[in-house]
Amino acid sequence: MSDILRIGIAGLGTVGAGTLALLRDNADILRSRCGKTLTVVAVSARDRAKDRGVDLNNLKWYDDPRALAEDPNVDVVVELIGGDSGPALALVTATLVAGKPVVTANKALIALHGTALAALAEKSGVALSFEAAVAGGIPIIKALRESFAANRTSRVYGILNGTCNYILTTMESTGAEFDDVLAEAQALGYAEADPSFDVDGIDTAHKLAILSSVAFGAPVDFAAVYTAGIRNVTATDIRHASELGFRIKLLGIATIGEEGIAQRVHPCMVPVSSPMAHVDGAFNAVLVDGDFVGRTIFEGPGAGAGPTASAVVADLVDIAREWRVPPFGVASSALVARPSIPIEDRYGAYYLRLNVLDQSGVLADIAAHLRDHDVSIESVLQRGRDPGERVSVIMTTHETYEAGLAQALAGISESGAVVDPPCMIRIENL
Amino acid sequence: MSDILRIGIAGLGTVGAGTLALLRDNADILRSRCGKTLTVVAVSARDRAKDRGVDLNNLKWYDDPRALAEDPNVDVVVELIGGDSGPALALVTATLVAGKPVVTANKALIALHGTALAALAEKSGVALSFEAAVAGGIPIIKALRESFAANRTSRVYGILNGTCNYILTTMESTGAEFDDVLAEAQALGYAEADPSFDVDGIDTAHKLAILSSVAFGAPVDFAAVYTAGIRNVTATDIRHASELGFRIKLLGIATIGEEGIAQRVHPCMVPVSSPMAHVDGAFNAVLVDGDFVGRTIFEGPGAGAGPTASAVVADLVDIAREWRVPPFGVASSALVARPSIPIEDRYGAYYLRLNVLDQSGVLADIAAHLRDHDVSIESVLQRGRDPGERVSVIMTTHETYEAGLAQALAGISESGAVVDPPCMIRIENL
Repeated sequence: MSDILRIGIAGLGTVGAGTLALLRDNADILRSRCGKTLTVVAVSARDRAKDRGVDLNNLKWYDDPRALAEDPNVDVVVELIGGDSGPALALVTATLVAGKPVVTANKALIALHGTALAALAEKSGVALSFEAAVAGGIPIIKALRESFAANRTSRVYGILNGTCNYILTTMESTGAEFDDVLAEAQALGYAEADPSFDVDGIDTAHKLAILSSVAFGAPVDFAAVYTAGIRNVTATDIRHASELGFRIKLLGIATIGEEGIAQRVHPCMVPVSSPMAHVDGAFNAVLVDGDFVGRTIFEGPGAGAGPTASAVVADLVDIAREWRVPPFGVASSALVARPSIPIEDRYGAYYLRLNVLDQSGVLADIAAHLRDHDVSIESVLQRGRDPGERVSVIMTTHETYEAGLAQALAGISESGAVVDPPCMIRIENL
Repeated sequence: MSDILRIGIAGLGTVGAGTLALLRDNADILRSRCGKTLTVVAVSARDRAKDRGVDLNNLKWYDDPRALAEDPNVDVVVELIGGDSGPALALVTATLVAGKPVVTANKALIALHGTALAALAEKSGVALSFEAAVAGGIPIIKALRESFAANRTSRVYGILNGTCNYILTTMESTGAEFDDVLAEAQALGYAEADPSFDVDGIDTAHKLAILSSVAFGAPVDFAAVYTAGIRNVTATDIRHASELGFRIKLLGIATIGEEGIAQRVHPCMVPVSSPMAHVDGAFNAVLVDGDFVGRTIFEGPGAGAGPTASAVVADLVDIAREWRVPPFGVASSALVARPSIPIEDRYGAYYLRLNVLDQSGVLADIAAHLRDHDVSIESVLQRGRDPGERVSVIMTTHETYEAGLAQALAGISESGAVVDPPCMIRIENL
């Protein structure tokens, strides 16, 4: 094999420019660590003229990224275009079919097409690597696929979206409402102009689907992820959480048991003593429970040019070192699909905020609905206002099944006892 | 290559028995993950009759572990004997010379002979793997060697000894003194009958020497590690640390800069907001600073049968998957020795506890010695007793060079101003 690994990069946004900078700045250590020179020979992006802070002279430019797959001078393709279809899917497919390894940071692509692409990579006998797709600089894919290979993993969960964690942390520290913090985050460049992928939990769900596949040896099943975002979390909820000894975090949680695999993304109240409670700002954290290793926790920057480039180039180093392991830890044909456990089967405690008019009988109505569905109230907080004014009733429940709680809340909504849809946040005693 | 990896294990203590149990309990997932059957074929230990909770029938027994190296039915040797010389060194050397890979959990052996053994492994073209030697179940060796291969690492530090962390955590929660907590830990089996390796910091120093070698690409240099343990930490110090907003942890800290590499192990006062402050009990934690990835933190169980077996078998899985990377991340011939920065060059703040007789002039004497060596006092706490009685003067200093502070403390000791040797704990604003 040659002592040069010739790289083609598609997509020169933040991560692409960071990857070029890393390969330039740390060329010497990369050479000593993998015994090969990692050289970018070709790139493809939308705008050739844009200043990216890195020199693109001497690099072959392609307007169509698919040309990278066919260029005989390109040994490996780095896909940083993004998106679960279109040019990214076309490029990755063409590259694997051409018998070349692929490195990608594209969580949507892997979450939706990971199993099929892994089969294609195995058929061609090349790597499909996506360390950068989950939790940025945290090497959780390699950890699950290699370091914990001796374990049956029963659970993997974490804070997987830095934008949401930044917003929730800032809401807590400033007391501001979601919309204001989001607008500020957008102004600062911490959140996208269209924030939906982040704040509606979709990005977290993409990452969770990948994590649970690698952890449990199951085909990636993004469609099975229950997904709720943070738009409905209010400053009031955060304040009440704090009074109750909790913090609110958007978690992705995947568990496996006799009945199947549960995957869910939603705001959680976690005890302040939880390892997740003190992960602040744009940091990510992932916790893994394995039968022999026990509990391990990884924390680090979940996004950004440097951390993501670090993960992309780590995958390139593995390829240069001729290391090949199935993308999801076992051959794609050995991935075992399991039943998906619906969110209705969740058994746990809940925080409820019900906005009511301060009238006699309202609390009795609410309590009756909960009782009728076997939901037992642990605590109630209603701060007095003038009769007839709008007031929040804050409750926590004992552990119960979500199906019953959902029915009770539907009944409460229909009864007219509340003036807004009930707010419910799951309490996770992690 | 065969589809069976035949394993010989030397040393059947806690970790050896755990490794046998793991290979038995998780045989199915191991087979699906590495496409090979991992089978123990031979063992060696001191006492054949001892009940270890695992079936040793059908396994070849050797009284002399070196026989494992020569047995043609053994493909890979797992060394769990321990010790930096004697049978462990003889076995590992003989196995590598015989052209067979070695997996070891032996931190002392790697800390003292790692570079030479790595050269031997590379000459034979086989793996020398020691994930289990550092931080138990935390996959920090693979992370540094592979996941962070694209980074220049400037610092790695952490809590690397669960026994010390358990003792310090218990001293803090109970207010008890070191000797009492140690005795209790020994009774519970959390500390060895001879606790010196743990409480004097030697075990941490072994692990730190290995970490800094992998992180910085330098030959292992255990002799260069400044090492101080926790025997002199008192309940008083822990209480004062708490009042000052700190917790006391035994850390191993390795840094690299223009002048060379600094490696030191000693009790530290860390701010309660530090990621190390809330790592309690027998947990370990490691933090890595890389130029592109930024700061990542790994936490997990630092010892015990299950976590250590998980790391041992992860190394076996890598070998079964035919993965080979130089033991320290670069070829041993490419490791670059750097000057060792002595502890005297440390620049930082200090906590001091000086036990004095409550007599006039004592504080003036102490302050004069500190002033004469450019040590500036940040805070002083002296709680009154009856004149002539023994009292502790608690001080913190501004940042200063350790050389000057050491001279000042030597002068204070000689002057007769103190009734005990001064206690000094370094403040690390990590």
